Amino acid sequence: MNTIETITMTPIGIVRTDVPDDDVPRRRRTLESTIEIFDEYDDGLEGITDYSHVFVLFWMHRCPRPTPLQVHPRGNTALPLTGVFASRGRARPNPIGLAVAELLARDGRRLHVRRLDAYDGTPVLDIKPYDHYDVCSDPRVPRWFAERLQRGGATQPVSGG
Amino acid sequence: MNTIETITMTPIGIVRTDVPDDDVPRRRRTLESTIEIFDEYDDGLEGITDYSHVFVLFWMHRCPRPTPLQVHPRGNTALPLTGVFASRGRARPNPIGLAVAELLARDGRRLHVRRLDAYDGTPVLDIKPYDHYDVCSDPRVPRWFAERLQRGGATQPVSGG
Repeated sequence: MNTIETITMTPIGIVRTDVPDDDVPRRRRTLESTIEIFDEYDDGLEGITDYSHVFVLFWMHRCPRPTPLQVHPRGNTALPLTGVFASRGRARPNPIGLAVAELLARDGRRLHVRRLDAYDGTPVLDIKPYDHYDVCSDPRVPRWFAERLQRGGATQPVSGG
Repeated sequence: MNTIETITMTPIGIVRTDVPDDDVPRRRRTLESTIEIFDEYDDGLEGITDYSHVFVLFWMHRCPRPTPLQVHPRGNTALPLTGVFASRGRARPNPIGLAVAELLARDGRRLHVRRLDAYDGTPVLDIKPYDHYDVCSDPRVPRWFAERLQRGGATQPVSGG
């Protein structure tokens, strides 16, 4: 049934940030970084500044593989073991990172963004504009997530690069 | 600067739908389909039904490559030529599809979802839960998109598989 065995991709850019890897998850909400799109893909950015937010798909290249299929969310063993597809963590069969980032500015082939939780040097696979069809105003989430959200706690996803 | 040349991935599942390919974009908002997760990844679904919505990352395997770097949104030549990274269309350097889907039910290793605009047989790369940090309640979008949204027109993304 698994008719396609292997899929190959090539990075279209790279993440640049001065923030040390270990600080990326903690500082995610305010973190600013730069996506450098490679020269040959420059034309693909035309019109992007018409959007306030973008999805950034990146390759978490330092994620060891193979990964376990269940993890404790946020690495917190007080939280129930959860399948990787019900988790936003780094450990996953195909370690694609996904972030909703604020697009602050474009400077040629450089995009300045906020809230991209990727490490310096992370390969970028794709950028897509965020629009109204991506908004689910009141998503249902697990109880532990909702409780942390109410407390304003450290619920942000931990991805990295 | 492009230090990683090639990235490889393996599908974790496949999309099943009775809807013919040509009808997928038009019927996207109500379209129901099934994601069959391959046996070996079954454990990765634990806890997923605690979420109402998921991101589905899929491989648009019928997208011809290489692709142009600029396209007319929705294939509509009345709309300005736009970079692929400012577009949700299928044509892109790494044709990863991204959909926010409603998770209707889980039946073993099958997920029943709504609003997944992927063709029958599309390989699935990853599934991630959608949470409150993915909500941007009032994103800025291009004028043509906002106007169509107000008219309730056919603004839905066209991706496919």
